[in-house]
Amino acid sequence: MNTQQMEQMGQFRITVWEEENFQGKRCEFMLECQNIMERGFNKIRSIKVENGPWVGYEYPEFQGQQFILEKGDYPRYEAWSGNSGYRTEHMLSFRPINPNPRRTNNHSDSKVTLYECEDFQGRKFEMCDDYPSLQAMGWCSKEVPSIKVNSGAWVAYQFPGYRGYQYILERDRHQGEYRNYNEYSTQAHTNQVQSIRRIQH
Amino acid sequence: MNTQQMEQMGQFRITVWEEENFQGKRCEFMLECQNIMERGFNKIRSIKVENGPWVGYEYPEFQGQQFILEKGDYPRYEAWSGNSGYRTEHMLSFRPINPNPRRTNNHSDSKVTLYECEDFQGRKFEMCDDYPSLQAMGWCSKEVPSIKVNSGAWVAYQFPGYRGYQYILERDRHQGEYRNYNEYSTQAHTNQVQSIRRIQH
Repeated sequence: MNTQQMEQMGQFRITVWEEENFQGKRCEFMLECQNIMERGFNKIRSIKVENGPWVGYEYPEFQGQQFILEKGDYPRYEAWSGNSGYRTEHMLSFRPINPNPRRTNNHSDSKVTLYECEDFQGRKFEMCDDYPSLQAMGWCSKEVPSIKVNSGAWVAYQFPGYRGYQYILERDRHQGEYRNYNEYSTQAHTNQVQSIRRIQH
Repeated sequence: MNTQQMEQMGQFRITVWEEENFQGKRCEFMLECQNIMERGFNKIRSIKVENGPWVGYEYPEFQGQQFILEKGDYPRYEAWSGNSGYRTEHMLSFRPINPNPRRTNNHSDSKVTLYECEDFQGRKFEMCDDYPSLQAMGWCSKEVPSIKVNSGAWVAYQFPGYRGYQYILERDRHQGEYRNYNEYSTQAHTNQVQSIRRIQH
């Protein structure tokens, strides 16, 4: 356990169950889990987040689709999954998100920059607030080719109103630099981003 | 057409298609639609909102499940539906939402009050911002028994992170008073509310 993990103990807490509605085999975590199958789980079908936020992943080792998990009750897969057209229903690894790891800024200082082209080219737009519709804000496309996270942690979504594929974007990962949509997620299918919001503690 | 509807003309615009990915029969609206089947549609399977926000309903005459529709592209049902466990996949009526009909206040003045019990009893909490997790903010339950909208328009959601059943709550409807969960929607199945956000123009 390294120093950062020591600091996290108690700050983050999540409980996962093998069956829906908090039934069957359960396991509680205060640190990241690289592969829930190593704990004898077949699937995760319900979740309670006592302290968050966390990010869940479709596959082991933090690969595949991403799911933001904030404090609250998730009695079945559809409660956290962003894209119900996609039927695999796996969530096999998860980790805490530290929106402000150095505690030098607070939620209201979160900032992200969207770019019109890949590699931070073209027109850009700086944002410090949540936008359920980027197009309503004036962004002319349904696509966002590259994103720089200046501070904090954010979730970008494929559709308006915080729906569809989710991408967790953090200042502390990739140095906050996401040069093209393949960097949004290990399995991003599209560069469509139509809504974006801050991740709050 | 009444005066309010005259004012709305051009301010709101939505296009609906009978097939996914903006294919097949289409129809454009600048005013509410009480029953899309009267236009010869079997279903709505994709939507573009050019100017919003709108609210869609599962059944004709603005009944049943509600769906917030902000500016942007919705290529299939899952892009707007909140509860994928529920498979009817109907959206048969829709209407514009006027977050600030009298234009005397702006988005930042939106205010809502949550109550611990029905009929605005018990402890209360006033909010002016978006909350992806009410529990993270200090609300001790996953339920919200009654809600008063002091100004603006809001969406309340069953699950954290703006997921699950959606309830559109407006100052201009019910005088902003929702005394119990049956008033959140004509077919509310639960008083679970775990996230809430403002509706923006």
